[in-house]
Amino acid sequence: MQQLSVELGSRSYPIYVGSNLLPTLADTLSAALNQQIFIVTNDVVAPLYLEQVQLALTNHEVMVFCMPDGESAKSLATWQDALDALLGSGFARDCTVVALGGGVVGDLAGFVAASFHRGVDFVQLPTTLLSQVDSSVGGKTAVNHPRGKNLIGAFHQPRAVLIDTQCLHTLPARELSAGLAEVIKYGVMANAEFFSWLEINITRLTDLDDAALTEAILRSCACKAQVVSEDEREQGQRALLNLGHTFGHAIEKSQGFGTWLHGEAVAAGIAIACDVSQQQGWMTDDEYSRVVALLKAAHLPVSAPESMAWAEWQQLMLRDKKVKAGQVRFILPQGLGQAVVTADVSESALRQAVSRQRG
Amino acid sequence: MQQLSVELGSRSYPIYVGSNLLPTLADTLSAALNQQIFIVTNDVVAPLYLEQVQLALTNHEVMVFCMPDGESAKSLATWQDALDALLGSGFARDCTVVALGGGVVGDLAGFVAASFHRGVDFVQLPTTLLSQVDSSVGGKTAVNHPRGKNLIGAFHQPRAVLIDTQCLHTLPARELSAGLAEVIKYGVMANAEFFSWLEINITRLTDLDDAALTEAILRSCACKAQVVSEDEREQGQRALLNLGHTFGHAIEKSQGFGTWLHGEAVAAGIAIACDVSQQQGWMTDDEYSRVVALLKAAHLPVSAPESMAWAEWQQLMLRDKKVKAGQVRFILPQGLGQAVVTADVSESALRQAVSRQRG
Repeated sequence: MQQLSVELGSRSYPIYVGSNLLPTLADTLSAALNQQIFIVTNDVVAPLYLEQVQLALTNHEVMVFCMPDGESAKSLATWQDALDALLGSGFARDCTVVALGGGVVGDLAGFVAASFHRGVDFVQLPTTLLSQVDSSVGGKTAVNHPRGKNLIGAFHQPRAVLIDTQCLHTLPARELSAGLAEVIKYGVMANAEFFSWLEINITRLTDLDDAALTEAILRSCACKAQVVSEDEREQGQRALLNLGHTFGHAIEKSQGFGTWLHGEAVAAGIAIACDVSQQQGWMTDDEYSRVVALLKAAHLPVSAPESMAWAEWQQLMLRDKKVKAGQVRFILPQGLGQAVVTADVSESALRQAVSRQRG
Repeated sequence: MQQLSVELGSRSYPIYVGSNLLPTLADTLSAALNQQIFIVTNDVVAPLYLEQVQLALTNHEVMVFCMPDGESAKSLATWQDALDALLGSGFARDCTVVALGGGVVGDLAGFVAASFHRGVDFVQLPTTLLSQVDSSVGGKTAVNHPRGKNLIGAFHQPRAVLIDTQCLHTLPARELSAGLAEVIKYGVMANAEFFSWLEINITRLTDLDDAALTEAILRSCACKAQVVSEDEREQGQRALLNLGHTFGHAIEKSQGFGTWLHGEAVAAGIAIACDVSQQQGWMTDDEYSRVVALLKAAHLPVSAPESMAWAEWQQLMLRDKKVKAGQVRFILPQGLGQAVVTADVSESALRQAVSRQRG
């Protein structure tokens, strides 16, 4: 088992990463778990891991809320159902909310924890690669609104995160790849050496080698943790973590949430961002090609859907959360291992990048 | 105009207190107001002060959400309506949510600000004495749930608070008195000298003398600000601010929210807490009598409803948020100007205190 600390002053917390950690989670997380535990999970994850987790928590008073799988369940209605169940259980503010599942479960459970009695203890047991390397670090919690994703939520840091790579062995290959999109993102935006490591080890990752997965997850979390430590409330540098997301969110919205997986849309978004950088002279042709090749090696899409017209792109990007005073701000790589937030992007470069088909 | 700072590190904020401050609020609050302003108010306050506030904000883009008056509007449904309106307005995360009204408006608007895009800027213009001396300090936001008050919410500090004592001139006398219950609470729990000042000046306050009101509000806010600075998330000392509230909440629940005003229930609760302290030898007969006399001088109730049976008290108090491991913890004065959190209370003293009628 390896360990990492997310440094946030009094809200600092540990992330534990390794293989087969769920059976001993009560010991590992003893400092973070209260007597009363409210587990939030979904109907796909529960049959796989809930019994294991409940067996590990026999000395605790446990209540389970099982939600439907999928992004559409990340709604105000489900959040309210979970709060009703939590209030019905008689649990008070000294309980711990535990998320067992992927990003949807983590985001929703986190907002339950953030808003129950103005914030109770929260622990994450992320079961998808995407949630392990992304939403488990940083304290973002949210639900969706008919007008867009994650529009309602709060910052609420967990007390601890426990990542068991064994969970990835039951994850559909398509979702594993989607998680790798965020892993690759860290290499592109912040760490050229990690990017090179990924080029060498990408097959070990897609083949579910636990040691390689542990390494990739730790390095991804460390990268995100550093950015988050410096900018907890997303005032500045944290925006860099959105590399590929302005384009990615537009794709998700255009195709309807869930048609493309978030990570798939981000992968295409990363390729588009690199394309813009390359056109603006901020990336070499070789660097651009290496990014596209690595995304493809992870079985990820590298182009947006052909059906998306420029007018649709413009309209969707204007709804991005980074829009300030009506201006879209993009995260663009500068070489490999570095990125900037900028509104200084030529429209023709953008148009070309979103419409290019990389086959 | 007088000014006070609530010291919370990077979340510190100013409170401005004085007479006739609304017409110049844009200048006073220039550092706290963004271009897009979402005003939350209610149908009683709006006819009185909304036009004045809108005139002061002619250089801003303003949208208004008007909710029904009363505690029953502090619901998840109203909160969701406000978020729908905010999202429908096209406002983004760089807007400011402004609460114009009493505690219900402030709590609901605060939770809207806390949960929109994971937290946007928030400014309070409290118009009732209760909200001026209580909810405007400390960052508590919440809505009610059928199972109890304030069960869903967040900590979200405002950027600034502006208190115009002129607003108190249109406040029903009964609500002014309810606010004075919290003012008196500060004297009892933390400041014997302020308590004596209140004994001398209580008639000036009930007669709406602006200078006396400004002084009482400033000193109350300063008292709360000090406690909150030392314990932002209510882990310890902040619980002292709940003097009278365990009993008060039980009365409110028993009678149905709104039958007793919150401050009225707290007044009776303060008298009951002092009664328990007096029986346990922590307050002299004279101190106890002075508290009861001051509450009466403020036209406040000093006894619980006769109809409440002991079994009901026990059941309701067990639902208090300060319950830990099944044990009710009480805030009890020790003399005047000091209080403690304790579970060490004799049942017979409790029984006697809640049933005593002080005429």
